[in-house]
Amino acid sequence: MVAGPCAVESFEVLDEIAGKIRAAGANILRGGAFKPRTSPYSFQGLGEKGLQILREVGDRHGLPVVTEVMDPRQIPLVERYADMFQIGARNMQNFDLLKEVGQSRKPVLLKRGMSATVRDMLMSAEYILSEGNPNVVLCERGVRSFEDSTRNMLDLSAVPNVKAQSHLPIIVDPSHATGRPDLIPSMACAAVAAGADGVHIEVHSCPEKALSDGPQALLPHQYAAVMEQIRRLADVMGKTIPSV
Amino acid sequence: MVAGPCAVESFEVLDEIAGKIRAAGANILRGGAFKPRTSPYSFQGLGEKGLQILREVGDRHGLPVVTEVMDPRQIPLVERYADMFQIGARNMQNFDLLKEVGQSRKPVLLKRGMSATVRDMLMSAEYILSEGNPNVVLCERGVRSFEDSTRNMLDLSAVPNVKAQSHLPIIVDPSHATGRPDLIPSMACAAVAAGADGVHIEVHSCPEKALSDGPQALLPHQYAAVMEQIRRLADVMGKTIPSV
Amino acid sequence: MVAGPCAVESFEVLDEIAGKIRAAGANILRGGAFKPRTSPYSFQGLGEKGLQILREVGDRHGLPVVTEVMDPRQIPLVERYADMFQIGARNMQNFDLLKEVGQSRKPVLLKRGMSATVRDMLMSAEYILSEGNPNVVLCERGVRSFEDSTRNMLDLSAVPNVKAQSHLPIIVDPSHATGRPDLIPSMACAAVAAGADGVHIEVHSCPEKALSDGPQALLPHQYAAVMEQIRRLADVMGKTIPSV
Amino acid sequence: MVAGPCAVESFEVLDEIAGKIRAAGANILRGGAFKPRTSPYSFQGLGEKGLQILREVGDRHGLPVVTEVMDPRQIPLVERYADMFQIGARNMQNFDLLKEVGQSRKPVLLKRGMSATVRDMLMSAEYILSEGNPNVVLCERGVRSFEDSTRNMLDLSAVPNVKAQSHLPIIVDPSHATGRPDLIPSMACAAVAAGADGVHIEVHSCPEKALSDGPQALLPHQYAAVMEQIRRLADVMGKTIPSV
Repeated sequence: MVAGPCAVESFEVLDEIAGKIRAAGANILRGGAFKPRTSPYSFQGLGEKGLQILREVGDRHGLPVVTEVMDPRQIPLVERYADMFQIGARNMQNFDLLKEVGQSRKPVLLKRGMSATVRDMLMSAEYILSEGNPNVVLCERGVRSFEDSTRNMLDLSAVPNVKAQSHLPIIVDPSHATGRPDLIPSMACAAVAAGADGVHIEVHSCPEKALSDGPQALLPHQYAAVMEQIRRLADVMGKTIPSV
Repeated sequence: MVAGPCAVESFEVLDEIAGKIRAAGANILRGGAFKPRTSPYSFQGLGEKGLQILREVGDRHGLPVVTEVMDPRQIPLVERYADMFQIGARNMQNFDLLKEVGQSRKPVLLKRGMSATVRDMLMSAEYILSEGNPNVVLCERGVRSFEDSTRNMLDLSAVPNVKAQSHLPIIVDPSHATGRPDLIPSMACAAVAAGADGVHIEVHSCPEKALSDGPQALLPHQYAAVMEQIRRLADVMGKTIPSV
Repeated sequence: MVAGPCAVESFEVLDEIAGKIRAAGANILRGGAFKPRTSPYSFQGLGEKGLQILREVGDRHGLPVVTEVMDPRQIPLVERYADMFQIGARNMQNFDLLKEVGQSRKPVLLKRGMSATVRDMLMSAEYILSEGNPNVVLCERGVRSFEDSTRNMLDLSAVPNVKAQSHLPIIVDPSHATGRPDLIPSMACAAVAAGADGVHIEVHSCPEKALSDGPQALLPHQYAAVMEQIRRLADVMGKTIPSV
Repeated sequence: MVAGPCAVESFEVLDEIAGKIRAAGANILRGGAFKPRTSPYSFQGLGEKGLQILREVGDRHGLPVVTEVMDPRQIPLVERYADMFQIGARNMQNFDLLKEVGQSRKPVLLKRGMSATVRDMLMSAEYILSEGNPNVVLCERGVRSFEDSTRNMLDLSAVPNVKAQSHLPIIVDPSHATGRPDLIPSMACAAVAAGADGVHIEVHSCPEKALSDGPQALLPHQYAAVMEQIRRLADVMGKTIPSV
């Protein structure tokens, strides 16, 4: 259960969010320090300062941390602070980056590309695995489509589809998939029922002030409510959510 | 819970399937008598003979029946035999057909077009509603996409998306959406967790001999297993499956 | 070279447009009397009154006329007034309608469905051909995609793709494909260079007052300019535009 | 007019191809030394050896050379050998790579991502421009779609769409867009008619022995025939193809 803000913005904001998502049952804290933004004129992340904050807040709350790495040259830096690398959708076929995190032994959260087939995603995982790093977690986060009332189209069939072809765990990110807080709870539940091994949700204590992707974040109390529902469904599925 | 074969093929085959899906808990029997096939050289359905079989089998098992209508001129005939009209994906924007079933008072199962947005689907429902027929049930059945390992891409976010804008019930058809029996159970469960009001699954006692869409049908015992899972999930969701 | 307004609105408007497109070199007049609109609350066309106007204006200017038929029951009526049936994108897989125009001997303009593959389109043509009507003209008019700055995505590769598999002529409609007057001239030229047998363009003398799809129509003088360019390209391609 | 094989395979093969495309009128030689392949088990390119061959062959024939760079750490090496950087579709949003080629003054050929909107592509160009490198050439190479008879769907409307918003030149790659040699000539002509500033075509003297993407390459004599057609169209468009 990965949760946290889109971007690390300040110690205070992240600390508040971390306390609340941990109380709700999240077991990994996310937060971007290097942000892949469509426009070069958008907020690009705090860089190393963001990594420091993420590490410190994670430690204070006993939460391991995951953050995106966009450039092979950032890997040593990110590895120093984070417990898990995230490869974003835009870099799913950045093969040199994949090979480089494959040289590490830290786990990698590999997000599906915006128009990647399931086979493409598994082949990208293979770039990491074949370098010797077996710790890959896939993430379905929606693909581009003609539907214009959601940010992307969540392809939950990717979950059993991956499980039919691979031993790799797969989690689901309904935040980027829908871009709509009103649809996230249902899609988080559906992900669990589809057999997902985890759910990745963006949470912010003040979405309207967020520096990136605020409008799609859940408030902490909304996240807690979703976690309640997920717990009940996981129970029926014979699964348990480990606490940190 | 709608189940049955893609096409009505014979009394014997349908009777066997109907007995088994009813035992598993289905409460509506489906079966096509007029089949919209991509090629004019494929099996086109039994026509009125198929409707007669469907009615007779439905009555024997106490199951109401739903079947597709493709042409406004078929409506009086179909209305004589069926309890519910189905408007297929290819006809979601066949507006004269929509207006005509809007003149009836029998319920209409309106399937989402292959590249219809959620708004398009709601507008098509409006063609029926505005003629005076309030009994419309929407059906998400997957949309066309670049993913080539499934027949279509199931858009489960359409379920809460519809519920946020309309009072109409919406069910999900994982059979046409995935085209793969191995993915149907997970997607049926995910649909229920997403808040769907029902699930539409193709079942055939001998898929390899089916005259249409056999490869995507579940066997009766697979359907019974899915219904078991759905029942447990529905329970957690505070819903019950009415028996016929 | 098919041109004209989206919908027939009045004798005066259509008469003015027809005079201008004929002068520019168009050889078929289009105009909708039965309009397939996403919403039932949008203008639905003038019906038979529209057909009468279309016929009268066509005759006055010596232009054969093409208009959409949406319902098999409208065929005798439409056949009385029009020289060519149009089957719209939303009805490309309305198989009963296809079979019915296949019973006629008037030519049929069959538009590609919004998410139809080239093979789907050829199979739909087969529904008409197999009923005995050999006069089918295909029309590429764009398909749905994620690109949000154009109405649809024009797939010009469908032109040589069709020609590699079929003897049927294929024309291109850049108006519905792009929805943007500023892109139509380039796409009309590209269509000719791709080998299209014709171009279908919406023209209106007062787009801002049009009752349907006004914003995508060219003004008559813009159409004349496009025709000039097309003529020069057709010349290089060894083709000529027949005059009426 | 960019032409050449997908990958640099050997001096002999490239030398033969270069001589023929130059004779046909190409003015830039392409060839991949670092290949972004979906699977890590496919041929990955010759690396620096490939760059050396490309440079040597380019010099022998008086053709400037363009080759893909996939990793910011490869830039100094690639810059030593190539006249122009290519950023491939998979790296269109590899923002660190974009910024890094933005630090160079060598021109950059930026290919559209597989599901990038036109706006996304322009924003990616902005990452290069805002670092101070004004020499960006965009390349439309098709996007992912549901159509399964072509490799991608060529979006030629991107050409006038870009020209309506930007001063940047844009060329078209019908090879990757269609993946079918029989469609490439028509699409190359259509690109020119749409207003493209150039055409990028893969050419191989022995496609069936090519180590990458052979089936979509044109034979040299086919390329020469396409160039003939392009020249006639360019003439009508008031454009000339500069010779090297």
